[in-house]
Formats: sequence, structure tokens, C-alpha cells
Amino acid sequence: MIGRFLWRAGPPGDPVFGNGEIMINTLYLPELRELLDEDNDAELAEFCTALHPARTADFMEGLTTDERWSVLQHADIESRVGIFSYFDRECQVDAVGSQDRREVAEVIAAMPPDDRVDLLNDVESQVVSELLPLLPAVERRDILRLRAYPEESAGALMTTEFAELSENLSVKEAIDEIGRQARELETISYLYIVDDDQSDQLRGVISARQLISAVARPEITLGQLMERDLVTVNVLDDQEEIANKVAHFDLLAIPVIDDDRRMLGIITHDDIIDVFREEATEDAHRIAGVDPLEQSYLETGIFTLTWKRGVWLIVLFVGALLTAFALTYYDENHLQWWSWLVVFIPLVISSGGNSGNQSATLIITAMVTGDVTLRNWYQVIRRELFVGLMLGGGLGTIGFVAALAMNYSLLQSAVLPITLLLVVVSGTLLGASLPLIFKRLGLDPALMSNPFVAGIIDILGIVIYMSVAACLLSR
Amino acid sequence: MIGRFLWRAGPPGDPVFGNGEIMINTLYLPELRELLDEDNDAELAEFCTALHPARTADFMEGLTTDERWSVLQHADIESRVGIFSYFDRECQVDAVGSQDRREVAEVIAAMPPDDRVDLLNDVESQVVSELLPLLPAVERRDILRLRAYPEESAGALMTTEFAELSENLSVKEAIDEIGRQARELETISYLYIVDDDQSDQLRGVISARQLISAVARPEITLGQLMERDLVTVNVLDDQEEIANKVAHFDLLAIPVIDDDRRMLGIITHDDIIDVFREEATEDAHRIAGVDPLEQSYLETGIFTLTWKRGVWLIVLFVGALLTAFALTYYDENHLQWWSWLVVFIPLVISSGGNSGNQSATLIITAMVTGDVTLRNWYQVIRRELFVGLMLGGGLGTIGFVAALAMNYSLLQSAVLPITLLLVVVSGTLLGASLPLIFKRLGLDPALMSNPFVAGIIDILGIVIYMSVAACLLSR
Repeated sequence: MIGRFLWRAGPPGDPVFGNGEIMINTLYLPELRELLDEDNDAELAEFCTALHPARTADFMEGLTTDERWSVLQHADIESRVGIFSYFDRECQVDAVGSQDRREVAEVIAAMPPDDRVDLLNDVESQVVSELLPLLPAVERRDILRLRAYPEESAGALMTTEFAELSENLSVKEAIDEIGRQARELETISYLYIVDDDQSDQLRGVISARQLISAVARPEITLGQLMERDLVTVNVLDDQEEIANKVAHFDLLAIPVIDDDRRMLGIITHDDIIDVFREEATEDAHRIAGVDPLEQSYLETGIFTLTWKRGVWLIVLFVGALLTAFALTYYDENHLQWWSWLVVFIPLVISSGGNSGNQSATLIITAMVTGDVTLRNWYQVIRRELFVGLMLGGGLGTIGFVAALAMNYSLLQSAVLPITLLLVVVSGTLLGASLPLIFKRLGLDPALMSNPFVAGIIDILGIVIYMSVAACLLSR
Repeated sequence: MIGRFLWRAGPPGDPVFGNGEIMINTLYLPELRELLDEDNDAELAEFCTALHPARTADFMEGLTTDERWSVLQHADIESRVGIFSYFDRECQVDAVGSQDRREVAEVIAAMPPDDRVDLLNDVESQVVSELLPLLPAVERRDILRLRAYPEESAGALMTTEFAELSENLSVKEAIDEIGRQARELETISYLYIVDDDQSDQLRGVISARQLISAVARPEITLGQLMERDLVTVNVLDDQEEIANKVAHFDLLAIPVIDDDRRMLGIITHDDIIDVFREEATEDAHRIAGVDPLEQSYLETGIFTLTWKRGVWLIVLFVGALLTAFALTYYDENHLQWWSWLVVFIPLVISSGGNSGNQSATLIITAMVTGDVTLRNWYQVIRRELFVGLMLGGGLGTIGFVAALAMNYSLLQSAVLPITLLLVVVSGTLLGASLPLIFKRLGLDPALMSNPFVAGIIDILGIVIYMSVAACLLSR
């Protein structure tokens, strides 16, 4: 049976098909359903353990929640949890709500502490309160404690299962002890050395690499080996800060402590990758003037989606109304040379907006990755001034030629390059300085920068355009 | 001396200052310089080993490259490499070019294979060709081989140092063997089982966790323990694909193989985090219409920066020129009711552009994270239609009231809500469908979507606005 699955999944001659996507999942569904009908315990158990759990989950994608759950019942609890954790969230929530409460409780009790809390947060509270009494007391308390931490805090990200040792252990004893603990743990990349008295204070850390390197000196103690200079996060620290710290120190996991340096848990690399993806998405949304979504795009309700976009659209709309008022003013005063100028209004406004948008995005992303800090403000402004002059000069030249080609007079056409130069420079300077200013004020630079730049540059563009035209033409 | 540094760095009572940024680096510079003047070997060696190398590097930030290099000479090679790898890139390149070639070669020989190739790629080729002959033959060949792989490929990301074992080893023998190898390796999270005959074919993998869990059964062999269902990447695979695979399978490292399944190296979690940050920045730049920068913002030359932005600004500018032509057409035909309509042109255009920009960004980021795929196109379009109707209706209502308040007639004011509804719906539909279309065509959805949406919606907005006005008013 393993052979059957493996052979079919990979290209011929590549029995373990390590590489390449599995494109033919649906081919297996009839076979799986047949095994289910036959209640073929042996082959279903083999199916659940032969492959990486992520692949097994992929194979089951076309099955209903009921069918997937039935398949899992043929596996040992470890494989069951492993495969279940790779189902998509929708199916997980569905299973938790619809399947036998005792079977569900068994899976939840065996899940990594951080993952099960994330899952339960998505499940109806009625279901959660029915499940909690079915869990062992230790797990129940752990869940309730983790759920109490604020969203996006270290406490909400951490897992409470980590390798904890006393500094008096020898290398030999430590390896044996970790051997006993390892099956329960998500990672043993780092072993944390905690005070022997019940205070749980974190004293040091040893990587698995360091421990194994010392295997030739089995009598040496962990206290002699451990690093005392620790990189930790507080349980209430924000996830973005944590992710940057882990990346800066190149860590596989980071310990979470409270104000008394008590060891509460660890945050592992896979959660850090998720944070980076989440934060990048949030920043992209903010840059586009969308209040970041809490769920994925398709999961977000249509009214929430409208609201999170509408807020900024209305702000920008009010900005544009101000532009309209500004135009009304010029409308009354300069009607005589009005109509031909109108033709280039969108051009002027969008050139300023686009160049400002580019600057703001470049500076925001550079600040996120740490390439630009507030200390670099002078450098940034000087660069953007030069870039703005070159871009404005270039666009102005094209505009000038285009206006001449459209049979406007030399003096009329000259309005365009001067305006464009001024507007583009204003755009780049404004786009570069607003994120810096927001950062200086302690705000998120990605927040509001681009919409603000767009709003301000719209009005500024009109004012510059009309003023330049008035100077050159109104005599 | 350790105490001195530690005590000063942390808040009182927190001798290991695990938490919080180090804000007072400059305080130590005079002390460090004094130690250098005294050539105080003992204290400088202690300074280099007492703290996490990233912290030690932070402390040295205010020193010149010469001074930093002198400090490092007091440390053992391991600490020297560790601290050096946390210097900023500029200082590293400077040191490689300016310091004693033999000392530099020693550090480079001891660096992780992937990191040193990255570094040498930034160093002048003259310097590299002087350094290569000073390196041991094995390291030299390794560097030349890794440099041959294309940028952003698995080969360019991988390190060639990994834990490699034979499947005939027992658990006990394996632990001893890894103990000997570990010091040289970046990570021992996974141990790779390779064919005994010199073919180097990858046969299986064991995690350090699995190996240690088996410590109570020391006679069992790796062949019995290892996982045979492998997740691997080909040496020529693209880094974005690799990063997604690592995230999907929650791996700490992924093996890199060639077409004959020969094991060439591994890619570790820290490089994966870098890839995610790089790709997120690239996507943000593309969304803002900036050709992604190859270096950081401040390192990019001013002309390169101008060019990478100018290309798209010119494309958008040409789009805006088309809008100008469109306006010229209406200019001649509808001059009689022209002037008051002009006032709202920026409002109409920016409402369409902003809502389209929101949609495009939401869909692009959702496709990057895999929340939306091409299969969801119908769902996406339906959602965006509804959202567009609600947003357009809302903005239209505000616009209608504003126009009435500005003393336009009822019929005149009615132009605004109808136009806004149509323009906003066009914006959301266009913004949502362009990234899907680009994806369908095999292009990067982030590429050009937002600039294209902006360009198209500008013209469309003008046409809709004028057509609505013509219908309602030109009788």
C-alpha cells in the first residue's frame, strides 16, 4: 500500500518524490473511500504514517470532514495530531464542532499548546465550553492561561512545552533526560536551564548542538556549558518586535519570561515566519489605505471588508472634496484661460501622487527591514530631492513636448514642465518625510502615510498648477 | 570585566539584561579604546566571548573598521567569525578589502559557506582573486562552486555544511559521530542519511529530536529510524517557492538535491526568514510601481533609484496623457456645461483609483499568502462587486450632499452619485481582476497591477463622468 501511494504520487523512477508539487490528489480519493467502506484498518493506518503528515493531509483534500475524521481514527494519536494540524482551518473548525467530543478532546489534548489555543479561538464558545471539561486538568489550565494573553503578544504566540533542565546535570544525564522529554516537545533546538528552587527563573541556555558537541566529555555539567547571556522576550512584548529580535540574533526559538524572569514558554521559528508574513501583509494593506484585516481575505465578512476600506476612502474623499473647493476658487477667478488647463489636471495630480506613493513605499519598507532609521533622515531627504528633480525634469520634458504637439503655444506649454517639476519634487519630499514623521511621533510609518501623501499632493498639485499658470499667463 | 559590561548594559537588578534594546552602546567606546591602547589581551578576549556575538557586535558599532578588527584579533577564531558576521555589511566589505589578507582569509575560511559567498559577492573582484589563493583548497573550490549558481536559486542560498551519516550507524554511534561533526556545522536539527557508495544520494532524514528520543535504545540503526518521505528542493528552484515549501512543512532546514537526487547542501531557517522579508519588500515595491531594488534603499545609487522609478512613472504618465486627450475631446464638444464639472474631476478620478488600489493590494497579498488562488476567481469578483456597490453608494451619497451644499442644482448634483457608483465599482472589479489575469498569464500578480489599475481607471473615470453628465444634462 505504501508502494501504491508512493509510486503513483511521484514521477516514474523517483519512489520518494521529494520534489515537485502533488498535482493528482484527486486520483486517490476513490481508493481512500473504498478503504473507508471496507473499514480496512491496516491499510488506512499505513496511509496515515507512510508520508510526511503535510502530504497525507494534501491527499485527503477532496474528502469531507466526516471522511477525513474517520481516516484519522485508524492512526495512532501522534499521526492523528500531525495530519490534523495540516488540514485547512475551515475543516479543523468544522471537525471540532461536528465530531465526537471525546475524540476531539483527545486530539486537542495532544496538540502543541500554542496551536490548540489558536484553533479554539476560532471555534464557537459553546463548543469550547463543552470540550474543556473533557480535557485533562493540566491541559485545561494551560489553555485558559494562554487564552488570557492579549492578541499579537508573546504570550499569545508561545508554546508552554520546552526542554527544561537543571544546571547540575551532567552531559550524559542531560542527553538521557532529553531523550525522555523529546517525544512531548515541539523542538529541542535549545535546552533551557532553570533554577532548582521552584522559582523557575531562567539561568542559561544550551543548544542541542553544544550539548552533542560535548558528548565526548560526558561528566561535564550543564552549568559549565551553558550560555549566560540570554536573548529573551517579555510575555507582553509585541510580535513584530519579537520577530525582529529572532531574525537579528538568528535564533531557532526564543524564551518568553515574565517581569520576574520566570520562564513561561518559547516561541518557535515557524511562528516567527508566520509573524513576518502577517506583518508584511498588514503593511501592504496599510500602504494601500486598508485597515489590516484580522482574517484572510475570503474569510472576512463583506461588511467588515467594506468598513475597513470605506474608512480610508471617506478620508481620501473628503481630501478630494477640498481639492474641489480649491478648484471652485480658481474657477471663479481664472475662467478666461480655464478650459484648456483642465485637460492636464489629471496628469498633474497623478504624477505627484504616483511619485509620492513610490517614495513613501520605499521609505516604509526600508524602515521595516531596518535599512533606514530616523538617524538617516537627512540622507533620505537629500536623495529624494535629487530623485524628485530628475523625475520631475524628465516628466516635465515629456509633458512639454506633448503639449507642443497638441498645438498649445510655447508659453502655454511651458506651464506643464514647471508645474510637473514642482509637483513631483513635492511628492517625493512629502512621501519620504511623512513616514519619518509618523515614526518620530511613535506611530506606525505604514499607517496612513500613502493615503495622506495622496490627499495632500492632490490639493498641492492643483494650487501649484494654477499658480504657475497665473504667473506665466495672466497678463 | 564581564560584570562591568553586563552591569552597565542592563537595567539595575537585571544582570543578564535579556530584554530590551541596548541604547547606550557609545558609553563603552572609550573603555574599549583604552583596552586597545593598552593591548589588554585578557580583557579584550573576555569582551569577545562573554556576550552573544550579536550583542558584542552592537557594542562595537561606534568603532572604526581598523579598531573592530584589532579587537577581534584577541578572540579565538570561532568568536571572531561569530562577531564579524553581525557587523553591518558595509563594515564587513571594508574590513575584507583593507585588513591583512591572511587574517581575512582565516576568517573567511571559517565562515558558513553560504554567508561567505554572499559577502564575497559584495567585495571587489580584485580583492577576491587575491584572497582565494590564501584559502585552503577545499574552501576555495566550495566558494567557486557556490558562486556559479544563479541568484535567488536554491544553490545560491544553501550551505554545504550539514550533518551527513550512514544508515548502518547505531543511535549510539550516530550521537558520537555528530558530537565530532557538530562544532563545524551551522545546525544539527536534521541529520541526513546518504548512500554509502560514493554516489551521495539522499536516502532519508532523522531530526535531532528523533535521534535523542531513541537514546534509550542505543543499538537501533538510523536506517530503522529514518523518515523516507523527504521534502527536498532542487538546486535550481526559485527562492520564493523554497520559502513557501519550508513554511508549509514547518521545517527548520530543507535539503537541496540535484537531478540525480545527490545531496548538495541545506537551506536553513534564517535564510528562509530573509527570503520572506526580501520577497515582501519586492512585492510592496512592485505594488507602488517601483522596479524592485537589488540593494537596500540607501545603498542603491541615485541614478539606479531614479531609473527604477522613472520607468513606471513614464508609463503612468503616458496613461495620464491619454486621459488628457480624452478630456480634449469633451472640451470641444461640451464646452457649454464644462466649467463646473471640472471641479469634481480629481474627486472622481481619485475615488476610482483609490478603491481599485485597495482591491488590487488585497488580492495580491492574499495570493502571496495562498489565501486566494485562481480557483477563487468567481468568489473574488462577486465580493468585489458587492463591496464596490456599497463603497460607491456611500461615497456617492456624500458627494451628492456636498454638491447640493455647494449650491449646484438637483440635476447637476445627481451626476456625482451616479458617476461615483459606476467608477468605484469599475475600480474594485478592475483592481481585483487584473492580478488574477496576470497570474493566469503566468506573470507575477504584483507586477504592474496597481499602476495599470490606476492608469485605466483614470481614463475610464473621465469617460464615465462625461457620459453621465451628457445623459443627464445635455438636453
